[in-house]
Amino acid sequence: MEMLLIKLEKSINTPLYEQMYNQLRRDITDGKLPVGMKLPSKRKLGDFLNVSQTTVELAYAQLAAEGFISSKPRKGFYVQAIEELAYVQPMQVAEEMVTEKIVDVSFDFSPGKIDTESFPFTQWRKYAKDVMDESSRNLLLLGHPHGDWELRQEISRYLYHSRGVDCIPEQVIIGSGTEQLMPLVIRVLGTEATYAIEDPGYPLTHHVFFHNNRVAIPIAVDEEGMDVSLLQRSGATVAYVTPSHQFPTGSVLSASRRTALLNWASSVNGNFIIEDDYDSEFRYTGRPIPSLQGMDKGGNVIYLSTFSKSLMPSLRIAYMVLPPVLLNRYEKAFIHYSATVPRLDQHILARFMADGHFSRHLNRMRKIYKRKLQVLTETLASYAPYVSFSGDEAGMHIILTVHTETNEKSLVLAARKASIRVYGLNEYRTVAQAGEPSFLLGFGGLSTEDITKAVEDLMKAWNICKSESTC
Amino acid sequence: MEMLLIKLEKSINTPLYEQMYNQLRRDITDGKLPVGMKLPSKRKLGDFLNVSQTTVELAYAQLAAEGFISSKPRKGFYVQAIEELAYVQPMQVAEEMVTEKIVDVSFDFSPGKIDTESFPFTQWRKYAKDVMDESSRNLLLLGHPHGDWELRQEISRYLYHSRGVDCIPEQVIIGSGTEQLMPLVIRVLGTEATYAIEDPGYPLTHHVFFHNNRVAIPIAVDEEGMDVSLLQRSGATVAYVTPSHQFPTGSVLSASRRTALLNWASSVNGNFIIEDDYDSEFRYTGRPIPSLQGMDKGGNVIYLSTFSKSLMPSLRIAYMVLPPVLLNRYEKAFIHYSATVPRLDQHILARFMADGHFSRHLNRMRKIYKRKLQVLTETLASYAPYVSFSGDEAGMHIILTVHTETNEKSLVLAARKASIRVYGLNEYRTVAQAGEPSFLLGFGGLSTEDITKAVEDLMKAWNICKSESTC
Repeated sequence: MEMLLIKLEKSINTPLYEQMYNQLRRDITDGKLPVGMKLPSKRKLGDFLNVSQTTVELAYAQLAAEGFISSKPRKGFYVQAIEELAYVQPMQVAEEMVTEKIVDVSFDFSPGKIDTESFPFTQWRKYAKDVMDESSRNLLLLGHPHGDWELRQEISRYLYHSRGVDCIPEQVIIGSGTEQLMPLVIRVLGTEATYAIEDPGYPLTHHVFFHNNRVAIPIAVDEEGMDVSLLQRSGATVAYVTPSHQFPTGSVLSASRRTALLNWASSVNGNFIIEDDYDSEFRYTGRPIPSLQGMDKGGNVIYLSTFSKSLMPSLRIAYMVLPPVLLNRYEKAFIHYSATVPRLDQHILARFMADGHFSRHLNRMRKIYKRKLQVLTETLASYAPYVSFSGDEAGMHIILTVHTETNEKSLVLAARKASIRVYGLNEYRTVAQAGEPSFLLGFGGLSTEDITKAVEDLMKAWNICKSESTC
Repeated sequence: MEMLLIKLEKSINTPLYEQMYNQLRRDITDGKLPVGMKLPSKRKLGDFLNVSQTTVELAYAQLAAEGFISSKPRKGFYVQAIEELAYVQPMQVAEEMVTEKIVDVSFDFSPGKIDTESFPFTQWRKYAKDVMDESSRNLLLLGHPHGDWELRQEISRYLYHSRGVDCIPEQVIIGSGTEQLMPLVIRVLGTEATYAIEDPGYPLTHHVFFHNNRVAIPIAVDEEGMDVSLLQRSGATVAYVTPSHQFPTGSVLSASRRTALLNWASSVNGNFIIEDDYDSEFRYTGRPIPSLQGMDKGGNVIYLSTFSKSLMPSLRIAYMVLPPVLLNRYEKAFIHYSATVPRLDQHILARFMADGHFSRHLNRMRKIYKRKLQVLTETLASYAPYVSFSGDEAGMHIILTVHTETNEKSLVLAARKASIRVYGLNEYRTVAQAGEPSFLLGFGGLSTEDITKAVEDLMKAWNICKSESTC
């Protein structure tokens, strides 16, 4: 049998067996070593190349593991047949991929931004230090698929005291966000469910229904929230609502509609309400609006909320409270799924809540946002009667209406030219409406100084004068 | 036994096995085939309908995977009871995932557990402290929907150097786990895609296809990995594979099959390979098996991996590398989605990787797991020839085969009585196989002392003696 001349260099860093492996592999794919050829025994090749048998053994084992050679017991190693690789065109990366879009904006009235100046980093860091400790080794492994007990307990306590939600920790399911939890709800509700959504509403929810191949019927929203009489006639079986603070109009679902909605849900077996209570913590006028879930006697409300507004959007912790009938179904369907929220984060948050920091943080933030809102509305007030606003009792944005003939798109563009981002209300509707243009003005992410300056720049860009001046 | 008259049309586009599957499924749900009825053998039905046995096999396997029929070893296939309310019974899940319900277990050979004793808490805490700082206020807000640049860059560097993956950071998409990323991939691949999965394989993946209403065709795995010739005949357009270390058998996709698989993917427009490289970091013999993605010239490989094995399962950080053609589609489809991984965690990990701690941790863990594996195989060796094992070159579990007449379930129960959890290989198959019982023995979560004790207790529970002794 022929020997194999393999060039091995002891001086370089690559281990000898790897050099041997590389060369043999190349020779096999190049066809220099024909299919079926018997390789020299480990001992013979080792002697020939003056390397240890172990070196040859490692190289052969690797080639065998990858299928380039195969061993026949008591016979030796043989070169395997390798198919030709079909060479298609090399991978091309679209140019647009390489540079990600950078937007040049001075002021962004995004309704999704929060105040980042007042986050309690010191406390958060302290709990992180406590949790990320050798004593919590077990937290490295997977936890309960619905989220860890400690956090579910804190959330159920908080919901009971602050939102009047009637639940036990077993009903709470932790997830990475509304858009991660919603598909699970949709699956549990089955393929027969037809959804009603608010119009205008939260575009992400509409996408979730669309992506999950579910029909979603838009139901008009007025100053009392979703029009329940339209819902009743719609044929929908599940209503997705934001009753405490309708997004984006800011209206509150009126008491009579709440009752009508709950009656609608309990009147037909299989009807459900999804209550999205995304920013109910921030109400500046009067008492907080109690949750619909707390009024529900029929077990027909799925309660959904998030820490995105109350702590930070990037935390990616949301939760839902399932009525018992759905909890059963959920457990059957998803028991093998893992919670998507990192366990260390779940425990940092649970301890932060247990020690009262969450409530304190909310109280502090409520004052800060109230002050920002006040600056925004006061600044806008001086531009009346050319502009007016609504939805200024809660949350982190208001609705601004401009009394002009110019359309929404032109005003968004004019703002853009002045490096200001505003969000046209039509973007949140299923069908754009004519009439006076309206905008969402988020104030959470802007400082009070910036709010004043941003409004002044915006009005200038739109050629709107203060009522007392001429310009 | 009665034959089944199934109307098959060779002229239409739907593959024959799918026509057969559809009709049988309808007949079962309609009650035309009564619960408990035995189906004709594959050979007999194949002969009767004048189609190949493979066609019948595929139809039966899919029905079994979805729980419409079940197989009794050496007996045949039987119609299962289906609940009235449309919930098709999903595949049986290895109980490994239901973590909290394990109470009375002394030793758990779960393949999903890792060593928690050696996690570098000190470094992790240090980076957490650095990141959770007033200077990173912007990290409280939402980041890039595909994940933050810093982490994507570190991952693409790591993949290039360690796995031969050819990509730029723009192609990397961060997610909370394989089960969170897979539905996104499935949506991007469209409703036309038909999936091929490994059998035996990872039950969670099968569930993901099922939950997303996609047909998944089980393809047999042997010691060279997925049988690509079966794949070619299956009608599938997307193959989900674990080429570096097949789960759960531990086989490596051979070089000839790699080439054949890549050729299959590039031969038809719209064919793709999903390469799940879940634990490729841990290979104890020879060099790591290079990724399929690195060999791909056609841009047909979607590369998927996770930090669950290499750092901790509870971190919930996984990632995928999309080929350019899909990246474009992905961006369009998910423009509104937010990354599900907390940004602070993304940055802790990115800094941990950038400073070389990840590589160091991997090197340390590789030694630890190698030592555990050695203890496991040495302990088992003394029970030969009554037991044998395979898949002992990589990962955190091996396959143990017991040479006995007793069946798998009885042995699992016998182990359970001795407070030991083992995982029968049939739990990972779409159709249980008769023959000698095999088990997954995970060793990652056990100490070396526990491994020895656990094996000895297990063998005692199974009445297996050491070869040199009499008992």
